[in-house]
Amino acid sequence: MTETTSQPAERFSVHYRIAVGDNRPVEEHAADIALEQTVEIPGDCVPDEVAAAGIVGRIEKIEPVAGGGSRFDAVISYRADITGFCVPQFLNVLYGNISIKKGIRITRLDLPESLLAAFGGPQFGVEGIRRLAGVGKRPLASTALKPIGLPIPELAAMCAAFARGGLDIIKEDHGMADLHFHPFRERVARCQEAVLAANAQTGRNTLYFPMISGSFERIADQFAFVKGLGVHGVLVAPALVGLDTVRALAHRHNLAVMAHPAFTGTHFHSPDHGMTPAVLLGTIFRLIGTDISVFPNYGGRFSFTQAECVELADALRAPLGSLKPALPAPAGGMKLDRIEAMAEVFGPDTVLLIGGALLQHSNDLEKSASTFMQGIRKVFGDDPR
Amino acid sequence: MTETTSQPAERFSVHYRIAVGDNRPVEEHAADIALEQTVEIPGDCVPDEVAAAGIVGRIEKIEPVAGGGSRFDAVISYRADITGFCVPQFLNVLYGNISIKKGIRITRLDLPESLLAAFGGPQFGVEGIRRLAGVGKRPLASTALKPIGLPIPELAAMCAAFARGGLDIIKEDHGMADLHFHPFRERVARCQEAVLAANAQTGRNTLYFPMISGSFERIADQFAFVKGLGVHGVLVAPALVGLDTVRALAHRHNLAVMAHPAFTGTHFHSPDHGMTPAVLLGTIFRLIGTDISVFPNYGGRFSFTQAECVELADALRAPLGSLKPALPAPAGGMKLDRIEAMAEVFGPDTVLLIGGALLQHSNDLEKSASTFMQGIRKVFGDDPR
Repeated sequence: MTETTSQPAERFSVHYRIAVGDNRPVEEHAADIALEQTVEIPGDCVPDEVAAAGIVGRIEKIEPVAGGGSRFDAVISYRADITGFCVPQFLNVLYGNISIKKGIRITRLDLPESLLAAFGGPQFGVEGIRRLAGVGKRPLASTALKPIGLPIPELAAMCAAFARGGLDIIKEDHGMADLHFHPFRERVARCQEAVLAANAQTGRNTLYFPMISGSFERIADQFAFVKGLGVHGVLVAPALVGLDTVRALAHRHNLAVMAHPAFTGTHFHSPDHGMTPAVLLGTIFRLIGTDISVFPNYGGRFSFTQAECVELADALRAPLGSLKPALPAPAGGMKLDRIEAMAEVFGPDTVLLIGGALLQHSNDLEKSASTFMQGIRKVFGDDPR
Repeated sequence: MTETTSQPAERFSVHYRIAVGDNRPVEEHAADIALEQTVEIPGDCVPDEVAAAGIVGRIEKIEPVAGGGSRFDAVISYRADITGFCVPQFLNVLYGNISIKKGIRITRLDLPESLLAAFGGPQFGVEGIRRLAGVGKRPLASTALKPIGLPIPELAAMCAAFARGGLDIIKEDHGMADLHFHPFRERVARCQEAVLAANAQTGRNTLYFPMISGSFERIADQFAFVKGLGVHGVLVAPALVGLDTVRALAHRHNLAVMAHPAFTGTHFHSPDHGMTPAVLLGTIFRLIGTDISVFPNYGGRFSFTQAECVELADALRAPLGSLKPALPAPAGGMKLDRIEAMAEVFGPDTVLLIGGALLQHSNDLEKSASTFMQGIRKVFGDDPR
């Protein structure tokens, strides 16, 4: 470690909100985090050479949260290289062991370019997705292919109708795994075929994003298979298959990533624990290559607040070193009459995702899709390509 | 789906504890879960054929929790085949979307043999680990190689001392990634060498379990590499690298799995959300092949209660179809003076894991390890092999 003493090693910072639930001063709680997430031994056991190299987390700042009772914002920095510049160990340093403690929430990350570049971020980003879909400045319109259990010909027919109706992205339902009702390869091939045929009629570029959630043995083949069909992107749930699996396979096959938040919700149940939606579904999902991050919009059947949703959208789109901006996709019980409100809150660089309500609107899915597109045009005007 | 109407499809059951936080009856909350986790559309949109096939979750039972206020235990069954018999989609059906709702906690799983067999469970189990370590009926003794940042020769020397002192399993610290201080291959080779040399002296079978947390591109090679060195098992954190990654690679290389709970803690912060430690670190980790499940013991520096720890140990060891029983490894701030108490609570089929306290006990690690072993012998007597 001699090289580390000559010049200070690059560090990154994690903002922890600490809810102190005992009589110990917040400084002790922060010091516990700094040890726990690095050397994981009592402070009096840290070897001198390890301490001198700055391997223990460093408390950079602690300040009380205004009006937050016994809550404090603590910024702790870590050497960037203790992450090994790989996602599993990065997550481990951020929150591995302390996830099992009470009252610690991650509210922000400050990351140096070395880490951003190591993970790569979105391959397409806002402009890339707009180019793929052939959409200028308006929000993109998306729906979900559902429910699971339908025969493949019905699913393909739904794809065709949605595409003829003018939607930009048809994503599969995130439960649409490799099931015997609709085996993965056959289903994806027929749906992609249906969308391409509709595109040939309409002259548009509706995109079909199949869900990928296969076992470790199969998932690499699934990415390769959809790429071979000319599919441009996939729906995938990083918390189900592993965040680094998504990063690696999407980059290997140059596929756009629409990330689904399934199984992430334990981070959001308490305001005193986990990570904010902006950190996990925003910054971290963007880091691993998410081009479009699906999240449960406020006012639907989930519990995010408007402020959380806006902060998340900001984390996806704000400048972040060399990383491309990504698109927020508010969803989860959205209805056609909320297009204007959603457009106002999230602006044009957004994917509006309406699923069940489109099925409820009419039995004629093409007509439902058209109504959705008219709703967007009503707010944003025509979008000449 | 015609085949499904002739005989009822096999189902599995999830026990959800629902904390009702509004004025709607619990039946509506349970019905929401049954739709959300399967078809994910409003009830009035479910196609007849999908409903008839039993694809929507089925409410089997709802009863109030005694003394639990507005909490209810709801058992919901799902067709086993909607999991695709693969781990990511299994997790998705259990808790994917509803993780983002409030007040739903999984307290138990009832799984048919088809699902158990598909995932496989522990390859070694209690008896297999005892055989590898050459330990009869007493608890196994384990420690952690730490801290990160030490040069490889120091780590190898620690391994040698722990092995000479008689410990059964030397696991690496879970932050010991492929870092430039101690690159993975060189570190693992030297540590395994040191342990084997000590074993040749002592005649014992101390096991060395390296930590595996590499990127998706490297992790398969890391499993293969350690197997090639004659290593018998690994430490791995399923929530960091993906649960199915662990299942697949451990089985591919016939390596024992010591599972670390890093990054799982968001499940345990609230008694009204997530999964119980017994379900996640017990049943589910066992399903994916965990032979030894590390968890933060009560009375250490984490927050599990004694009851939670005992329930978790039971979930690892209780009969579960064709699956082998696994070993609990209470850890997280355990000290030498707690051996007797831990032995009383957890019994002999346990891995006692003492990390930092062993380093604190003495600068002579061999002596510290001997003291640990004497503590076990004091309670359990000699253990002739």
